[in-house]
Amino acid sequence: MIKARVTVTLKNGVLDPQGKAIEHALGGLGFGGVGQVRQGKVFDIELDSTDKAQAEIDLKAMCDKLLANTVIENYSVSFV
Amino acid sequence: MIKARVTVTLKNGVLDPQGKAIEHALGGLGFGGVGQVRQGKVFDIELDSTDKAQAEIDLKAMCDKLLANTVIENYSVSFV
Repeated sequence: MIKARVTVTLKNGVLDPQGKAIEHALGGLGFGGVGQVRQGKVFDIELDSTDKAQAEIDLKAMCDKLLANTVIENYSVSFV
Repeated sequence: MIKARVTVTLKNGVLDPQGKAIEHALGGLGFGGVGQVRQGKVFDIELDSTDKAQAEIDLKAMCDKLLANTVIENYSVSFV
C-alpha cells in the first residue's frame, strides 16, 4: 500500500480572502510580525498499489480531474 | 523573513465525511484501488523574523489558539 499526500495551494496572484481573514485574526490575537497567510488543502490518500511511478501518474490525474482547480490552484504530490 | 507551512489533519478515529465523499467520487471517476482518503488544511505563513526557534514556538501557539482544533486535529510545522 502506498500512502501519498497531495497538497493543493492557490496560485500566486489569486485572491485568498480566507487567508487574509486568518492574517487579521492572528494580528488581533497579538501575534506580531505575521506577513502573508495563504490557505490550501491537503489530501492523504491510500492506494492499493506498490508501483510508485504509476501511483504518481494516477495521483496527478486525480488532481487534474477532481482534487484541484488547475485554473487557480497548483498541486504537488509526495509520498509518506 | 521566514516562510513556514502548517499542516492540520484530522486525528485518527475522527470521522471525515469530506474525505469519504472524495473517496467515492474518485471511484466513480474510474480510479481503482483508492483506499482511505482524509482531507486536511495547509497554511503558508510568512513571518517577519529570522529566529526559527522563536518562530516555531509562535507558530505552535497560533495552531493551539486559532489554526487547529486540538480536540480533533493534529498539526505539524515545517519551514520552506
